[in-house]
Amino acid sequence: MQYEVMDTQIAPEGHLEVLSKAEVARLRDTSHGSLYQLFRSCALAVLNCGSGLDDGKELLERYKEFEISIVQRERGIKLEVKNAPASAFVDGVMIKGIQEHLFAVLRDILFIHGEIIKNEHINIDSTEGITDAVFHILRNANLLQPQISPNLVVCWGGHSISGAEYDYTKLVGYHLGLRAMDICTGCGPGAMKGPMKGATIGHAKQRIDSGRYLGISEPGIIAAEAPNPIVNDLVILPDIEKRLEAFVRMAHGIIVFPGGAGTAEEILYLLGILLHPDNAALPFPVVFTGPAVAADYFKQIDQFIGLTLGAEAQSKYKIIIDDPVAVAREMQEGIKKVRAFRKARGDAYYFNWLLKIDAEFQHPFEPTHANMKGLALHKQQPAHLLAANLRRAFSGVVAGNVKDQGIRAIEKHGHFEICGDPEIMHAMDILLTSFVDQHRMKLPGKAYIPCYKVIK
Amino acid sequence: MQYEVMDTQIAPEGHLEVLSKAEVARLRDTSHGSLYQLFRSCALAVLNCGSGLDDGKELLERYKEFEISIVQRERGIKLEVKNAPASAFVDGVMIKGIQEHLFAVLRDILFIHGEIIKNEHINIDSTEGITDAVFHILRNANLLQPQISPNLVVCWGGHSISGAEYDYTKLVGYHLGLRAMDICTGCGPGAMKGPMKGATIGHAKQRIDSGRYLGISEPGIIAAEAPNPIVNDLVILPDIEKRLEAFVRMAHGIIVFPGGAGTAEEILYLLGILLHPDNAALPFPVVFTGPAVAADYFKQIDQFIGLTLGAEAQSKYKIIIDDPVAVAREMQEGIKKVRAFRKARGDAYYFNWLLKIDAEFQHPFEPTHANMKGLALHKQQPAHLLAANLRRAFSGVVAGNVKDQGIRAIEKHGHFEICGDPEIMHAMDILLTSFVDQHRMKLPGKAYIPCYKVIK
Amino acid sequence: MQYEVMDTQIAPEGHLEVLSKAEVARLRDTSHGSLYQLFRSCALAVLNCGSGLDDGKELLERYKEFEISIVQRERGIKLEVKNAPASAFVDGVMIKGIQEHLFAVLRDILFIHGEIIKNEHINIDSTEGITDAVFHILRNANLLQPQISPNLVVCWGGHSISGAEYDYTKLVGYHLGLRAMDICTGCGPGAMKGPMKGATIGHAKQRIDSGRYLGISEPGIIAAEAPNPIVNDLVILPDIEKRLEAFVRMAHGIIVFPGGAGTAEEILYLLGILLHPDNAALPFPVVFTGPAVAADYFKQIDQFIGLTLGAEAQSKYKIIIDDPVAVAREMQEGIKKVRAFRKARGDAYYFNWLLKIDAEFQHPFEPTHANMKGLALHKQQPAHLLAANLRRAFSGVVAGNVKDQGIRAIEKHGHFEICGDPEIMHAMDILLTSFVDQHRMKLPGKAYIPCYKVIK
Amino acid sequence: MQYEVMDTQIAPEGHLEVLSKAEVARLRDTSHGSLYQLFRSCALAVLNCGSGLDDGKELLERYKEFEISIVQRERGIKLEVKNAPASAFVDGVMIKGIQEHLFAVLRDILFIHGEIIKNEHINIDSTEGITDAVFHILRNANLLQPQISPNLVVCWGGHSISGAEYDYTKLVGYHLGLRAMDICTGCGPGAMKGPMKGATIGHAKQRIDSGRYLGISEPGIIAAEAPNPIVNDLVILPDIEKRLEAFVRMAHGIIVFPGGAGTAEEILYLLGILLHPDNAALPFPVVFTGPAVAADYFKQIDQFIGLTLGAEAQSKYKIIIDDPVAVAREMQEGIKKVRAFRKARGDAYYFNWLLKIDAEFQHPFEPTHANMKGLALHKQQPAHLLAANLRRAFSGVVAGNVKDQGIRAIEKHGHFEICGDPEIMHAMDILLTSFVDQHRMKLPGKAYIPCYKVIK
Repeated sequence: MQYEVMDTQIAPEGHLEVLSKAEVARLRDTSHGSLYQLFRSCALAVLNCGSGLDDGKELLERYKEFEISIVQRERGIKLEVKNAPASAFVDGVMIKGIQEHLFAVLRDILFIHGEIIKNEHINIDSTEGITDAVFHILRNANLLQPQISPNLVVCWGGHSISGAEYDYTKLVGYHLGLRAMDICTGCGPGAMKGPMKGATIGHAKQRIDSGRYLGISEPGIIAAEAPNPIVNDLVILPDIEKRLEAFVRMAHGIIVFPGGAGTAEEILYLLGILLHPDNAALPFPVVFTGPAVAADYFKQIDQFIGLTLGAEAQSKYKIIIDDPVAVAREMQEGIKKVRAFRKARGDAYYFNWLLKIDAEFQHPFEPTHANMKGLALHKQQPAHLLAANLRRAFSGVVAGNVKDQGIRAIEKHGHFEICGDPEIMHAMDILLTSFVDQHRMKLPGKAYIPCYKVIK
Repeated sequence: MQYEVMDTQIAPEGHLEVLSKAEVARLRDTSHGSLYQLFRSCALAVLNCGSGLDDGKELLERYKEFEISIVQRERGIKLEVKNAPASAFVDGVMIKGIQEHLFAVLRDILFIHGEIIKNEHINIDSTEGITDAVFHILRNANLLQPQISPNLVVCWGGHSISGAEYDYTKLVGYHLGLRAMDICTGCGPGAMKGPMKGATIGHAKQRIDSGRYLGISEPGIIAAEAPNPIVNDLVILPDIEKRLEAFVRMAHGIIVFPGGAGTAEEILYLLGILLHPDNAALPFPVVFTGPAVAADYFKQIDQFIGLTLGAEAQSKYKIIIDDPVAVAREMQEGIKKVRAFRKARGDAYYFNWLLKIDAEFQHPFEPTHANMKGLALHKQQPAHLLAANLRRAFSGVVAGNVKDQGIRAIEKHGHFEICGDPEIMHAMDILLTSFVDQHRMKLPGKAYIPCYKVIK
Repeated sequence: MQYEVMDTQIAPEGHLEVLSKAEVARLRDTSHGSLYQLFRSCALAVLNCGSGLDDGKELLERYKEFEISIVQRERGIKLEVKNAPASAFVDGVMIKGIQEHLFAVLRDILFIHGEIIKNEHINIDSTEGITDAVFHILRNANLLQPQISPNLVVCWGGHSISGAEYDYTKLVGYHLGLRAMDICTGCGPGAMKGPMKGATIGHAKQRIDSGRYLGISEPGIIAAEAPNPIVNDLVILPDIEKRLEAFVRMAHGIIVFPGGAGTAEEILYLLGILLHPDNAALPFPVVFTGPAVAADYFKQIDQFIGLTLGAEAQSKYKIIIDDPVAVAREMQEGIKKVRAFRKARGDAYYFNWLLKIDAEFQHPFEPTHANMKGLALHKQQPAHLLAANLRRAFSGVVAGNVKDQGIRAIEKHGHFEICGDPEIMHAMDILLTSFVDQHRMKLPGKAYIPCYKVIK
Repeated sequence: MQYEVMDTQIAPEGHLEVLSKAEVARLRDTSHGSLYQLFRSCALAVLNCGSGLDDGKELLERYKEFEISIVQRERGIKLEVKNAPASAFVDGVMIKGIQEHLFAVLRDILFIHGEIIKNEHINIDSTEGITDAVFHILRNANLLQPQISPNLVVCWGGHSISGAEYDYTKLVGYHLGLRAMDICTGCGPGAMKGPMKGATIGHAKQRIDSGRYLGISEPGIIAAEAPNPIVNDLVILPDIEKRLEAFVRMAHGIIVFPGGAGTAEEILYLLGILLHPDNAALPFPVVFTGPAVAADYFKQIDQFIGLTLGAEAQSKYKIIIDDPVAVAREMQEGIKKVRAFRKARGDAYYFNWLLKIDAEFQHPFEPTHANMKGLALHKQQPAHLLAANLRRAFSGVVAGNVKDQGIRAIEKHGHFEICGDPEIMHAMDILLTSFVDQHRMKLPGKAYIPCYKVIK
């Protein structure tokens, strides 16, 4: 099949127009494994938003002729784009929001490789160094805005959800927007797009023209969850762990909508952190919500958490079904407590320094077949460490579903094997099976072939 | 039944904060027929947006205790509101967009009565004087923006339309917004709200934060079609004829969605003007559009126009079914011609001075029983004058349906009688009957009792 | 002698771009006594700023070929200027500040004649009506800014002052600017320009980019005191009395620098108002100040006031010699009291409604020979009425010195005769003689021929 | 003597509010030779602007108790200042422009040490690396603005000049400002302040509120040439050579006013670069200018250049005496050529990448007694290298006059010895003697004791 493509040249607005000779040179090296290849694949993902595709490998194969390069001009740089997906254009002109995303990708990739990785001041192997790296990337992307009172609600949930669920995420976003809250998601369609669309209307009615729709992505997931153009601040973190750390350090509250394995991964990551003894006193509003049809889904999640991590973990969130106004009010009340807490301690509103994130949650988990099989999925460890390992298991499933590398590994070596305590394995099997049954694993239109096997 | 109400005090932003002592005094007189009564009823309509009510009389009866008054403060005036409909508030705070609408109403009522009616320079009885009055009211409302290239699409259509039709108006608005076009409607729900919501999302994706969502209303209709809060520029004209003149002098193109008697009135008004010989050469893109389910509706409209006004009238518009992108492109192309035409003549982009509007279309039509019965509905007159009289007939029906005065007249004297050439009467009967059958006369939930009778 | 002239076309920014057909037509009538003639002479005065000329009659004779006309364009109006003084241009392009002033003149002349004079709501013969007219003109010029905390210092003083005095006015302006105060003067050079230049530097150091430099003029004086281009808000009142009322109703405090007859007129006007019994409790900071060389000047003024109006009048101001920081602090303290006073009463910050201005101070005084001779300059009247008459005497002298009409009257009928109580006449003679001796009557370079004679 | 001091706490505006924990920690180490000490001494220099002092050593001794520290707050950092010079305050509040300068100093010191020195991507020892470092520092300070058309005029000249010369620099600045040109200087009083003040008035008249007044300094000179608060973009480069490189890479044209040894150093640096064969074709407008009284001064400079570097060097600049308008027009014309040249090559407007700067001009010259004595001041070398060595000689004299380290070295080891070709030594002696005679070596009020001896 032939996909429609287009060529164009775009100019940035703002700071990024100015690159040094050395930076331009660094991006001109198009050899394999180079910065250019990374930039090209992220750029392609950004341009592909709006299509129904969530498969990074297929994307690269569809647009083999795609090229993107930097052109020097007297007023700064431009990006020259060739054979880009036509869906990024309106009557031949690239949608402005997508233009901005391309430059955001360029900014972050240059920054990560120019000022984080080779900077002696940042020890990327230490816990403090990783947090520092996340901080610097967010600051460089201009996301840390000290003048804004706490109002950032991170919304998690599936990119492949039903129409009723999608409409519900819009309604929740609308009521958050009416209450001047901003939205942050992982980009992509579904539960990551709905709240932003709803908040846009809510903000318009309240004449808030500074509404923020933050998208936090990383090179491995961006192809599956391309930022939709409403996202007006996009940032690319180096890997999934730093992306998750960015979420929880920026969030003033988190709403979880229905989703699949990725959402489960996010929930386990969040609970793992909140269960850490050092974080016991930290206010952090978390709401799981969906329309009436999603009531069962959250019952299953809640049961799985109860069975594996216990009642304390269950106390960290509130489940609200089919009541967008109640969700918005719950967030608002929770965030007031966050504000009071930080104000009392002089802790920054824009970055949650106090949150303790164990090294277990910071280091990238490589979902090889061996690593997946070796996960310690038993109860002879503190709950927050079990959460860390469960998180890794779901992370591997996501990779096997939608990430280029993961898909290739599954193609080569067959499905991942996941094993552990029978009780936990049983709960996990039920949960994953329900995800498959509810078509939460992939965008619709294809039958889902599991990339894993639960060994009981 | 008791309706929930709230009290509050609101401060304006911008120019309106400053009133003279005399202006404040003028609004403090609360006697019957005073400026205050007019302001109060329009303010109540604005506050009632979001409810399902479209009946001005019922509205006033529901909120008998409603009060609004001006308070002087060292930084300018404030509005004190008592017993206002609770739907205008979020958690006790009035929605910002509605606040702005209240001050817009105040601004226009003061201006019309302070600087138009008693100003010797404006002869409100002459054709030029009426146009001048419309111009001054729009300019005072800051709606005439000379720096903006022609991009204003007026959208007409019913406030009571089906879900599929409503979604379609959103899609059309979205594709207009993606192409940087602004939206102007008559306020209210349905076809007047959908295009604005869609355009809001389109503008957000294109990073257009100056998108304009203009609402043009008048005291007689505002209760039935309360401005939704997305409207970010509201203006109140003194009567329906000046409101219609404001539409056609500001529009660079017009889209008509499905609607009822009000929409038919607007169509006849527009065709009557475009059929005037002096306007023959003027470019003016007009599109009738709806989803597939609305195809029949437009076929009937088209037939009615063919039977009554003839083929030339039919040549003034284009019907596009179920293709939002085509509609947006048609508008864009048409507006390019408008721009070229005005540029060549040095004619203003922001106000269509060249458009000839016959006095027949400018003078208010009072829909008394006698006036309705006496309408000259025959073909022994130029098409544009027949259009004027047909327009009056539909205007009367709208008044009988939703306007306070009209409803009271019908309650007192029974239905209007409409008579004329049998051929025209026959066509009219078919059209009106189809409106009733399609539930296009009123918001759903009540059975429609016709306020007219076609005498054949 | 031939004066260099230039032609150009300029476009406005903002609201004024949009004129109605009727407004344009009103300005196209170029007959004698028409609006056009008034506009033309004010426009010429604005364009002539920067030259050393302060003689309205000579100005009109120098630039007989000067023309200004309105051109309609698709984006609004433009002004076409022919044979304009070259000093208004830099390398062929008109200085932006002067462009703005031309449009301000156009705005005010159109407004005064279109919406004040023929407006039945404003009774220009009553005290309330005059105040209302002043209010409407200022509001239309966007000068009444309710969000700004009281900070407007009106600076009065001569347009023909010594270098040392000029440098001192700059220093005072600088220290006012450092304290975030804005400046309002009567336009023109000398004491009306210096404080604005100084405040510009003070504001720049404090990063205040919203600094206001208001110029208040009227058609009769503008030729003698052309607004210098730093003035970023210019307003033209219809006559000298409304101009003075604008000053005192907008001022939060007043500084008087050395000057001539015009300054004496302003002082008497101000004291006449402050002496009115109704204003006894109103806080209103007034400082007379100058460098060491001006100490004698203020001693004479103070003595004249003591002799004519008495000690109570002297208590209304403070004299500070050669201490710019003390002047700035005195104003700051005084304005704090003004703020507290108005806040307590809910009285507007931007317009001093409470100030009682007697009708004697509001009605234009026509300085004919008969009127000048007939002035009641004796002590058998309350002090504030004597002040009113003394004010008129000085007003006549200003007219005879620099206003077109006054100069022509003197040319025809010889000098004005001023008579009254010997004591008062004696004091007046001394004061006026000292003005002549100190070259305070006209810009330097010409010998001063008195236009008056004090009859003792 | 006791100097008045004040304490306060100030908050930044914008990006800098957000520091990482590590950055704050780095500045908390107050040990000798630490970043803190560097920050403290630069901060003190900034706070001391407005005093007549130009002696870094004396400054540190005067304010021994001065402290500055970082405080963490929920909305970002604040600076706590203790025992700061009172001249930085107005009525107890620090002047806003000075607040900004403190944060600029903090920003640059953190950036240089955090992201330049320890960044493996930038090889600070290579020519490219040094240029890259200058580029990164300027970009981080947000000085590289690609959207601005070339308009940046660098003004050099003495900080200790006569009143007539100072007034002249204001006039030149005024006429540059009227023509929309921006000003860049080395901060400090005299010729570095005058053009900014003049341009401020010129910009105000042209309603240019984005006027840029750039100050480029370095830790060694800032105490002697404290940025005056009109500077609205301050940047601190690491040393004098990078500061000079920043000047010539940002400048679109350079004006040299009268000055002393520092000005001579700048002239020689500039000519040395322009004489490099690679730069022969590069347009670069340079004007030497002053009032009539400075005519002799420039004659001497011109003769010195003729004698040492020859006629080609003399062809690189134009001398204009007592004609500010001609200077402004010459710059405007020259900059048009710069614009055309860069546009044709697609070379950046905001950074002159094409300018070849020899390594000789980039490496810091340490003015020890041995280095000063060893300078190769003879004609057996290309003119641009002789210029480099002459530049060093004058650099040493500046250090001995006003820099802390230089003054201490002279105090310890006596004056510097400068030797070379007799002809050159003779010319140099005449020039330096004339500087002393004209009081161009230091701010007035002290007798000048030469820090050097020319050995003939």
